[in-house]
Amino acid sequence: MHATQDREFVFRVGGHEPRLHVAQGEAFTVFTEDCFSGKLTSVDGEPRKVAPYPRVNPLTGPIHVEGVSAGDIVAIRLISLTPARQWGVATISPDFGLLSGTRVNPNLQEPQDEHVWIWRFSADGKVLETPTKDGRKLRVPYRPFHGTLGVAPAHGEVRLAVAPGDFGGNLDIPDLGPGSTLYLRANVDGAHVVIGDGHYAQGDGEIAGTAIEGAFNTTLMCERVEMDDAFDWPRFENDDVIGVIGCARPLDDACRIAVAGLVRWVVDRTALSVHEAHQLLTQCCRLRIGNLVNPSFSVMCSIDKWVVAPRVLPRHRF
Amino acid sequence: MHATQDREFVFRVGGHEPRLHVAQGEAFTVFTEDCFSGKLTSVDGEPRKVAPYPRVNPLTGPIHVEGVSAGDIVAIRLISLTPARQWGVATISPDFGLLSGTRVNPNLQEPQDEHVWIWRFSADGKVLETPTKDGRKLRVPYRPFHGTLGVAPAHGEVRLAVAPGDFGGNLDIPDLGPGSTLYLRANVDGAHVVIGDGHYAQGDGEIAGTAIEGAFNTTLMCERVEMDDAFDWPRFENDDVIGVIGCARPLDDACRIAVAGLVRWVVDRTALSVHEAHQLLTQCCRLRIGNLVNPSFSVMCSIDKWVVAPRVLPRHRF
Amino acid sequence: MHATQDREFVFRVGGHEPRLHVAQGEAFTVFTEDCFSGKLTSVDGEPRKVAPYPRVNPLTGPIHVEGVSAGDIVAIRLISLTPARQWGVATISPDFGLLSGTRVNPNLQEPQDEHVWIWRFSADGKVLETPTKDGRKLRVPYRPFHGTLGVAPAHGEVRLAVAPGDFGGNLDIPDLGPGSTLYLRANVDGAHVVIGDGHYAQGDGEIAGTAIEGAFNTTLMCERVEMDDAFDWPRFENDDVIGVIGCARPLDDACRIAVAGLVRWVVDRTALSVHEAHQLLTQCCRLRIGNLVNPSFSVMCSIDKWVVAPRVLPRHRF
Amino acid sequence: MHATQDREFVFRVGGHEPRLHVAQGEAFTVFTEDCFSGKLTSVDGEPRKVAPYPRVNPLTGPIHVEGVSAGDIVAIRLISLTPARQWGVATISPDFGLLSGTRVNPNLQEPQDEHVWIWRFSADGKVLETPTKDGRKLRVPYRPFHGTLGVAPAHGEVRLAVAPGDFGGNLDIPDLGPGSTLYLRANVDGAHVVIGDGHYAQGDGEIAGTAIEGAFNTTLMCERVEMDDAFDWPRFENDDVIGVIGCARPLDDACRIAVAGLVRWVVDRTALSVHEAHQLLTQCCRLRIGNLVNPSFSVMCSIDKWVVAPRVLPRHRF
Repeated sequence: MHATQDREFVFRVGGHEPRLHVAQGEAFTVFTEDCFSGKLTSVDGEPRKVAPYPRVNPLTGPIHVEGVSAGDIVAIRLISLTPARQWGVATISPDFGLLSGTRVNPNLQEPQDEHVWIWRFSADGKVLETPTKDGRKLRVPYRPFHGTLGVAPAHGEVRLAVAPGDFGGNLDIPDLGPGSTLYLRANVDGAHVVIGDGHYAQGDGEIAGTAIEGAFNTTLMCERVEMDDAFDWPRFENDDVIGVIGCARPLDDACRIAVAGLVRWVVDRTALSVHEAHQLLTQCCRLRIGNLVNPSFSVMCSIDKWVVAPRVLPRHRF
Repeated sequence: MHATQDREFVFRVGGHEPRLHVAQGEAFTVFTEDCFSGKLTSVDGEPRKVAPYPRVNPLTGPIHVEGVSAGDIVAIRLISLTPARQWGVATISPDFGLLSGTRVNPNLQEPQDEHVWIWRFSADGKVLETPTKDGRKLRVPYRPFHGTLGVAPAHGEVRLAVAPGDFGGNLDIPDLGPGSTLYLRANVDGAHVVIGDGHYAQGDGEIAGTAIEGAFNTTLMCERVEMDDAFDWPRFENDDVIGVIGCARPLDDACRIAVAGLVRWVVDRTALSVHEAHQLLTQCCRLRIGNLVNPSFSVMCSIDKWVVAPRVLPRHRF
Repeated sequence: MHATQDREFVFRVGGHEPRLHVAQGEAFTVFTEDCFSGKLTSVDGEPRKVAPYPRVNPLTGPIHVEGVSAGDIVAIRLISLTPARQWGVATISPDFGLLSGTRVNPNLQEPQDEHVWIWRFSADGKVLETPTKDGRKLRVPYRPFHGTLGVAPAHGEVRLAVAPGDFGGNLDIPDLGPGSTLYLRANVDGAHVVIGDGHYAQGDGEIAGTAIEGAFNTTLMCERVEMDDAFDWPRFENDDVIGVIGCARPLDDACRIAVAGLVRWVVDRTALSVHEAHQLLTQCCRLRIGNLVNPSFSVMCSIDKWVVAPRVLPRHRF
Repeated sequence: MHATQDREFVFRVGGHEPRLHVAQGEAFTVFTEDCFSGKLTSVDGEPRKVAPYPRVNPLTGPIHVEGVSAGDIVAIRLISLTPARQWGVATISPDFGLLSGTRVNPNLQEPQDEHVWIWRFSADGKVLETPTKDGRKLRVPYRPFHGTLGVAPAHGEVRLAVAPGDFGGNLDIPDLGPGSTLYLRANVDGAHVVIGDGHYAQGDGEIAGTAIEGAFNTTLMCERVEMDDAFDWPRFENDDVIGVIGCARPLDDACRIAVAGLVRWVVDRTALSVHEAHQLLTQCCRLRIGNLVNPSFSVMCSIDKWVVAPRVLPRHRF
C-alpha cells in the first residue's frame, strides 16, 4: 500500500512528473485534499484569499501505472472512500455557478454575495448537517465520490484541474463513488492518473459551484483492459449499470456525446445494429447531469446491465 | 365517471371549445389515443403517411374544470393509468431526434432511415418486448406516464400539441405517472386541461423522438389549490419529492428555470433564505431530463420531501 | 392607396380577421405604432405600466393579399419608411436583454434597474441623439427598418407579437429597411400580413432588448412569386444580396438554419452541387445577428449577388 | 528585420521555447505556413493523411517580445500580409464544420464526403477562383487575414493550435487583416506570440471548417501598451472601429462576453455610465461571427470610433 508522503499537490492535469508508481491491479491508498487545499475551515473564511484561482482543486498524483502504454485503456477502480475529516465545506461565490453570471456567461447585474457553510457528519455518519441563520439545520444524505479523476490529456496539452474532458478530469459525476470504475484512454506511458476533489455530497449539476468538499483517504486500483475501437469518451461501470460520460457546452452537446457513445458501446457488446441499440437506449437510458458550472458541462448516459445481458445474447458478458 | 364519447381529438393546445366538463375533486376517466392516432400498427407502417405532421400527438380534451378561474392554480392528479392495448409503437425517423439533424438544427449529411418497432407486454405485464432483426428480443421495464398534460396557454396563444411550455403541454417528464400531481396556472376560466401522449416506457431525453407510444384509460382528478406568488413554471409532486419543470433551449436554460423555480418554492415553504435554499439544492437536488427533441427541451429539478420537512421547520407541510 | 383608419392594433400573429385588403402588386401605405403603443413618451415613463406584457409590439394588420392562396410564396417589398415622429424611445428593463437574467435564463442576482431614453433626430435627420446624465450626447446613425414583418403561422397556431419564426414575425433583422424584400410562405389564403415594430436604429442583437423604437408611415407592396421546393425559412433580397433568416435558440442553431437554407437556395439558382454551394458560402457569406433577446434568436446568412451571378451561370437570374 | 530561418513550426500554444526575439515597436517579417503545413496541394490530396490531427495549423513562433512582462498588455499590430503562394486550399471533411455532426456534437447519420478545392488568384489579384465540376468558376473576393494570433495561455496551460480563448489563438475573426491591432494580456514574460493560419478569404463562421488557407509573409510589430483594469478578453482596433472578441460555446455566450467587454471598455474610455454605454451599443454595435467550428466559437462586438469620440467627450482619445 502506498500513500502520498507529503502534502504537495498538483493544480493542473498533464505536464507533471509522476509522484507515485503503482503496479497493475495493485490496491493502494492515497490522501486527497479538498478543493480549497484544506484552508477554508470556517464560515468566516474567504475562499478567494485562501485558495485564489487557479490554485483550486489540488489533485493527488500524477500516478504512473506500470505496464500501461500510451493508447491503452486504463480501468480506474474506486474500492473505498473514507472521509479524512468530520466536516466538509461549501460556498456560494460571486460570478460562479449555474444561477449567476460568470466570466464566460457575463451579465451587467450586481454579483451575488459570498457565503460559506461548514457541513458536519451526523452521529451515525449517514447525514451531513449545517446550521441555518435562524438556528435550524439543513440536512442532506452522505453520498461520497471523487469529483476529479483523470489521466494526462492527449497531444501534450496541459489543462487546469477545473477542466473536464475526454481525459476525465473535473467530471463531477456523482456515481463515481465506492464500487465504480472509470475507463480512460492513456495518452502517455503510465497514464499519469490524478485524483481529488472529494465530495461528501453533491446534487445533480453542482449548481452553486461547489459540493460539500471534503478530504478522503481513498483506496483504488488501476489496470489495463481491452476495449473496442469505438472507445472515445470516458466510460463508466458499476454493479448495476454501464455508462458513457460526455463533456461539452451547451449541455445538449454533452448529452449527444454521452448517448452516441453508449449506442456505440452497446453495439459492440451485443452485436445489435446501431438502430436497435439507438431504440433500446431511447426506451430506458438514464441521463445524469454531473456539473453545470465547469469549463465544459458533464452528463452520463447509462443503461441497466440486465437490459443488455443476457437476454439480447451479448457477444461479451459485462 | 366521464369518458370521451367520440374519438375526435385535438392537435393543438388552446383555441378549442371544451368537450368535457368536470367538477373540482371529481375523479374521472378518459381514453387517450397514442401519438400516431392509433394508426401505426405494424413495422411496415409509414409514420409520416398515417400521421402526417402536424396531425401527431392527438390530445383528449379540452376539459373544463368547474370552479377554476383564470389565474388560479390547478392541481391535476393522475390516479391511475391502464394500458388500453397490449402493444405500443416506437419509431426512428429522418430529421428527428437528438442524434439527427432536424429542421431547427440542420446539417448536410444524408438523413437516417425510418424504422418502426412494435413493443408488446410480457406475460406478467412488467416488461415490454420487441424482436430484433436476428431473432433476439429487446426488453425494457414498463414505466407508464403521460408525455403531454397541459392547460390552454396564456394570452390567447395556440400551440401545436408537440410544444411544451409554462402551460405544460408536451413535457415528456417520465415522473408524470400514477400517483403524481402536476400544478399549472389556469389562463382561462375552467383551465381547459388536455391530456395524451401516453408512454409505456421512455428513457431520459426521449432520444430518438418517440417513446413506446401507447393508448391509456386514465383516471385523474383536478382541483384548485393555493400557491405562493412565486409560482411560475409547472410544479410537480408525488409521495416522495417536489419539483419544478423548466422548458427551454438549450437544455442549460431549462435547468436554470427548473432550479431557480425550486429555490423559490423551497424558500416559500421553509422560510429559508434564498442563499440557504440555493445551498440545500446544490447538495441534494436531482435533475431529470424529460425530452431533448421537442421545440423546447424539458427538465425537472426535484428534492426529497424529507429534506425540506420537518427538520427545517417548514411554514407549511408538504 | 390605403391607410389604417383607426388606431387599433393586434398583439398576436395569427387568429385575427383581416383589417385591410390589398391587391397583388399594389403599393399601399400604413401607419405602424411603436412597440410601446406610443405611450412611452418621456424618460420618467414606466414601460411596464404603459405597455404591460403582453400588450407590447402592436402590429398593423392583418392585411389580406388578394390572389394569394395558402401554400404560395408571398414577396413583401418595403418601398419606403417615413418616420411618423421626431423622436424614438428605448429602454433597459429588469429581467430582459442579452446581458441580464430573463424568465427563460434566470439567475439569483438582483435585477438591473429600469431606464428610458428619448432619442431625437438631428437637424439633418441623419443621426439620432439623446442626452447623457452629465450633459453630453449619445449619437447613432439613422438606419430605419421594421423589426416585425410576418404572415399568419402554419397549422392554426397563434403567437405573441414578440415571437419570430418561419412565419417571420419579430425578426429584428436590421436589413429589413427601404428597398428590401422578405419572402414568406402563406399559411392561409390572403397570407394575413402583419407589420410593425419600427426601429429608427438598432445595433446587431438588439442587446438591451429594445431598439430606438419609432412609429412609421410605410409604403409596401405584396405579390405572389414562384420559388423552388426547398423554400422553408424566410428569404431576403435587396439590390446587393440574397439571404435566408434562421430563428432558434441557441444562436448556433439559428446559424445552421440560415446557412443550410442559403446553401439550398444557391443550389437551386445556380445548379451548383450542394458541396460547391457549401464551399462558396464558406468563403464569402455574411452572418448578421438580428436579435438575441426574443423567444427565438434570429440571424441572416447572406451572399453578394455578383458571387452567384452571372459568372457561375445561374439557371435563373436574380 | 527578422524572419524564421527554418520551416519548423509549433502545433500548440504555450509550453514552447521562443524561436525569435523582437524588440518593442520593431517591425519584423515572418513566414507563416498554411494550416495543412503546405502539404495539401491538389484536389486529389488527402487532408487527414498529409496533415493528421493534431498536426494541423502550424504556428510561427513563439516570438519573445523584449520588455513585456507577465501581466502587461501587448499590442500586436499587423502591418502587411503578402501571399506567399499563388494558390490557397480549402476542404470539406467528414465530422467537421457547422453543418455536420462532429466529435463534440455527434449524430448517427452517415458522415459527409471529403472534398478539396484549390483556389487561385485572378490576374489582378483581387479575386480567388476555383473550377466547378461542370467547368464553371466559383469566385470570391481576396480578403487576407490571420486566423490564429495569440500569446502563451495563463496558468501554465498548453492548448492545441486549433483552440481560441482569452489568449487569442485560433480566433478566425476576418477583421484581423492589414492595419489591425489585437491587444492581449501577456501571461509570461515576453508574451510568446504565435501567428499563423493565414486566410486568403473566409466567410463569417468559417462554415465548412476551413477558409481559403494560404501561406503569408507577414510584417508585424509588437509593443506594450497601457489599458484599464477591466481588460479581460482580446481587444481589437483598426482605423474605424474598436471591438472585443468573445470565445465560448454556445455562440450566445461568446456574444455576451464580447458585448459586456465592449461596454466596459467604452465606459473606461468615455466615462459614460454602464447603463449609457449599454444603451449606446444596443443602438449601433456590430457583431461579427468569426468561427462556428472551433473548440470555442468566436465573435467580435465592435463600435465605430466616431460614435464614442469626440462627441461624447472621451477621457482618452482612441
